[in-house]
Amino acid sequence: MSLPISRFPVPELKSLPEDVRARILAVQEKSGFIPNVFLVLAHRPEEFRAFFAYHDALMEKEGGLTKAEREMIVVATSGANQCQYCVVAHGAILRIRAKNPLVADQVAVNYRKADIPSRQRVMLDFAMRVALESHVLGDADLEALRRQGFTDEDAWDIAAIAAFFALSNRMANFTGMRPNDEFYLMGRVPKEK
Amino acid sequence: MSLPISRFPVPELKSLPEDVRARILAVQEKSGFIPNVFLVLAHRPEEFRAFFAYHDALMEKEGGLTKAEREMIVVATSGANQCQYCVVAHGAILRIRAKNPLVADQVAVNYRKADIPSRQRVMLDFAMRVALESHVLGDADLEALRRQGFTDEDAWDIAAIAAFFALSNRMANFTGMRPNDEFYLMGRVPKEK
Amino acid sequence: MSLPISRFPVPELKSLPEDVRARILAVQEKSGFIPNVFLVLAHRPEEFRAFFAYHDALMEKEGGLTKAEREMIVVATSGANQCQYCVVAHGAILRIRAKNPLVADQVAVNYRKADIPSRQRVMLDFAMRVALESHVLGDADLEALRRQGFTDEDAWDIAAIAAFFALSNRMANFTGMRPNDEFYLMGRVPKEK
Amino acid sequence: MSLPISRFPVPELKSLPEDVRARILAVQEKSGFIPNVFLVLAHRPEEFRAFFAYHDALMEKEGGLTKAEREMIVVATSGANQCQYCVVAHGAILRIRAKNPLVADQVAVNYRKADIPSRQRVMLDFAMRVALESHVLGDADLEALRRQGFTDEDAWDIAAIAAFFALSNRMANFTGMRPNDEFYLMGRVPKEK
Amino acid sequence: MSLPISRFPVPELKSLPEDVRARILAVQEKSGFIPNVFLVLAHRPEEFRAFFAYHDALMEKEGGLTKAEREMIVVATSGANQCQYCVVAHGAILRIRAKNPLVADQVAVNYRKADIPSRQRVMLDFAMRVALESHVLGDADLEALRRQGFTDEDAWDIAAIAAFFALSNRMANFTGMRPNDEFYLMGRVPKEK
Amino acid sequence: MSLPISRFPVPELKSLPEDVRARILAVQEKSGFIPNVFLVLAHRPEEFRAFFAYHDALMEKEGGLTKAEREMIVVATSGANQCQYCVVAHGAILRIRAKNPLVADQVAVNYRKADIPSRQRVMLDFAMRVALESHVLGDADLEALRRQGFTDEDAWDIAAIAAFFALSNRMANFTGMRPNDEFYLMGRVPKEK
Repeated sequence: MSLPISRFPVPELKSLPEDVRARILAVQEKSGFIPNVFLVLAHRPEEFRAFFAYHDALMEKEGGLTKAEREMIVVATSGANQCQYCVVAHGAILRIRAKNPLVADQVAVNYRKADIPSRQRVMLDFAMRVALESHVLGDADLEALRRQGFTDEDAWDIAAIAAFFALSNRMANFTGMRPNDEFYLMGRVPKEK
Repeated sequence: MSLPISRFPVPELKSLPEDVRARILAVQEKSGFIPNVFLVLAHRPEEFRAFFAYHDALMEKEGGLTKAEREMIVVATSGANQCQYCVVAHGAILRIRAKNPLVADQVAVNYRKADIPSRQRVMLDFAMRVALESHVLGDADLEALRRQGFTDEDAWDIAAIAAFFALSNRMANFTGMRPNDEFYLMGRVPKEK
Repeated sequence: MSLPISRFPVPELKSLPEDVRARILAVQEKSGFIPNVFLVLAHRPEEFRAFFAYHDALMEKEGGLTKAEREMIVVATSGANQCQYCVVAHGAILRIRAKNPLVADQVAVNYRKADIPSRQRVMLDFAMRVALESHVLGDADLEALRRQGFTDEDAWDIAAIAAFFALSNRMANFTGMRPNDEFYLMGRVPKEK
Repeated sequence: MSLPISRFPVPELKSLPEDVRARILAVQEKSGFIPNVFLVLAHRPEEFRAFFAYHDALMEKEGGLTKAEREMIVVATSGANQCQYCVVAHGAILRIRAKNPLVADQVAVNYRKADIPSRQRVMLDFAMRVALESHVLGDADLEALRRQGFTDEDAWDIAAIAAFFALSNRMANFTGMRPNDEFYLMGRVPKEK
Repeated sequence: MSLPISRFPVPELKSLPEDVRARILAVQEKSGFIPNVFLVLAHRPEEFRAFFAYHDALMEKEGGLTKAEREMIVVATSGANQCQYCVVAHGAILRIRAKNPLVADQVAVNYRKADIPSRQRVMLDFAMRVALESHVLGDADLEALRRQGFTDEDAWDIAAIAAFFALSNRMANFTGMRPNDEFYLMGRVPKEK
Repeated sequence: MSLPISRFPVPELKSLPEDVRARILAVQEKSGFIPNVFLVLAHRPEEFRAFFAYHDALMEKEGGLTKAEREMIVVATSGANQCQYCVVAHGAILRIRAKNPLVADQVAVNYRKADIPSRQRVMLDFAMRVALESHVLGDADLEALRRQGFTDEDAWDIAAIAAFFALSNRMANFTGMRPNDEFYLMGRVPKEK
């Protein structure tokens, strides 16, 4: 597909600083392709490093939230921000991590109607509030999380993921970041044994 | 899957009036399954008849819009209304009619970023205005359509589809209408020859 | 009055299909004039038939809501959608059906301030939610109706009327449908005996 | 009608300061009844005096706007603010001043669809911007007025009326100010000669 | 500073009616400078008189609210309306009346995060509702005030101040009223003894 | 002042990883106090590192925007997001970098009314669009920047700063991050020579 993946120049891999290139090659090795977010943001190596360091600190860490739950926060808030790249790319990761081919499309359109337990529904209520009206957040919002068994450290995780993708959605919308075609089908078809 | 498809009782096929049952059996014959909208709305046969008569008058007619374009209007406005059933079900139909496995997800999240020609982008600008702020519609909106080659009859089609799904989205959101699992994968995997 | 009643051509009665013409003549016989919605929508006979079949299924049926209550839903939600035709025309019908010359103007501007019992206020809270934010509708909304004695079938009626006029308001706003002058005064002056 | 006209105590005429009572008796003499706004605001005589001094300075003055145009601004912005008292009471005055039984209902619901010349439509565009988003007002808004022949003093009049009724609408909504029954029919029926 | 303080002509003091000039000289005597609102509104002496009569009736009166609390309502609602003049000028007065150099900036940005007791937070919740959505105000809002010990007369004060500055903010935004440079630093630096 | 600066535990400096502590001591050395954002975010050292690496990559770099302009973007978008910490802290930095004691308060309330050249006004129009509705960003927005002499790399800077503070504002609102008292007066009083 020859459609541009960014409004900005996309650097050649060989022209990139060693650490940035290594990171990109590692993800290509693992995924079989290079997600466009890596190529688009590599236009600014210093920002690239901070972006992925932040991303990994939030998305790859241990903690009270499962990895699928983290991706669910990304998909729901990115849907609210109408960010095509993040909904499509993280929708794929959510399907894989949740081993559920349906949940990403459900959460992207309207998480209130998704097949998720009330714990996750409350988690997404909170994440959406961070994404869309953080200025009204108060104790009652944290209480609602606690009633579902979330710790305050979990609350930080939820808020920080919603906040980080507030940044990410805006950069993707600004750059016109195009989702790779590969993402659309990932995690939809059960693998044969 | 045993999750309920509606907040309301879903009638048995055999208990339905003959014409309603015939319509449902015909779609089952054609699609291989019964889309849940037929079963959910059959709770009220008289409304069912009017709903599908209206639907067919708009979606199955000849005219200046292709069938894929009609479905595109449904997907974009249903995304804006956060209607899970319509995005998932009509997303499937859009993929099939457009013979394009990517366009439905793109249009559902943010049609401004979709891989569509400017004609369709302007068509969706107009449809979204009908869906979200019809009280401000004026001559300038129709002029924008004409500049893309749409006739005023095409404008009626676009407006009427957006208006009909304003109804449809609200009924689906109200009844908690669940999309059939079959829709999620339809039109995503190219058929082998 | 020679102002146009639609952006679109208005058909001559004699050029219309027999059933459409018969329907229009019947309403003229009953009301003494032809409400413009009939003439404007007759531009598309097939959609006309479905529209009025749907309308009658919702507005003329027996059930837990009085006919005045059904019109009240139309006036409140059409006011929110800034639909001049529906507020003026159904305001007239509401005055007549409720035998109350004041309630339509009250409900059109702000139903929270209208002289209506709390049952009707809760009914309109629900209808407005369907009209304006159906994606957040949940069990709590239905519970609020039940506490006022509404059955779930009544809830369907309320939702379906609000949903149908979501369609109707958009078509009226799109076509520039002009209310007949007759409507403005109907039901305002008590008939002498 | 025994419904309360305010959440607050309504003073007896005889208990009011002389100037406030005189003002109220004068309006009663002229109109044949006492509009409730006078009785409701008389609860606070000092504010009453300032309110009506401001009102008269804007609504009774000579200038580039006709008195009907001034009332039109009141009705349009009060409709946007969902203020029942102001829409009903000033709707009556607008019908009388414009000698037009239809225009008030049209402007209250959606001024863009009213039977008014483009000069008045642009005037109301400006008034609505003052009412709803004055923080974005800029030179372009004043230019649009000038192109319709409005002077900058006319612009002040339009803005000041919209601003004054921003206050008035809020006080009416807060006090639960009830429109007098008399207003609903005023100006609707042509007087016989 | 030679930047214009209004889009409109600013009258010379000597050209003003005696009472208007006297009022302006008195404030200059007291404050050491003439706040621009006096000069800008003096363009229309009759409106000037009503404006300041209203202002004084609300802001200078005795009652259940302290003068600092009255200014707090002005700053919070003017922040919501993005009115630069009122936030800067009344922020200065608030700092002085509350003898607190921080509270004005806090309240202007987000009163929910300000260092204020819950009584004042509830007062501002109510004021913001008057400012931004007075059409939904109901008994529950007054109950919330009563639970904090506010009387219904206090409620009128809060509502009337929010309503008056709804007017004031719109006039300041419309005229492009410029805050005097003096206001920015007032009340920030503790006076030496 | 003993008010809490975060909902979360604030680490002791001595308990922090060496690099985090060094960074904090350096800012204390430079500013004379430790801005609370450092202490609040140090609760999560890994996120702290990414946050400040990102911050510095955007705010300390060379480029087409002055440092004052970068702070102006922060203040305007943080005002829109009602983030008290960022408005107060970056308002201080803006005053210092712009050597202008007034501009920060102006931009925080309503940048359209600030004493800034049209270049900066257009820059802030763009930044606000990124902050508040990035999903509609298109070529026309970039064109508007170019007409003011901004390069596309400048556009990235503007967008990235607005996006980064979308994150930052949400974290500050979530944690209840309290601005240090020192910020309020910084840059307001001209230094004596």
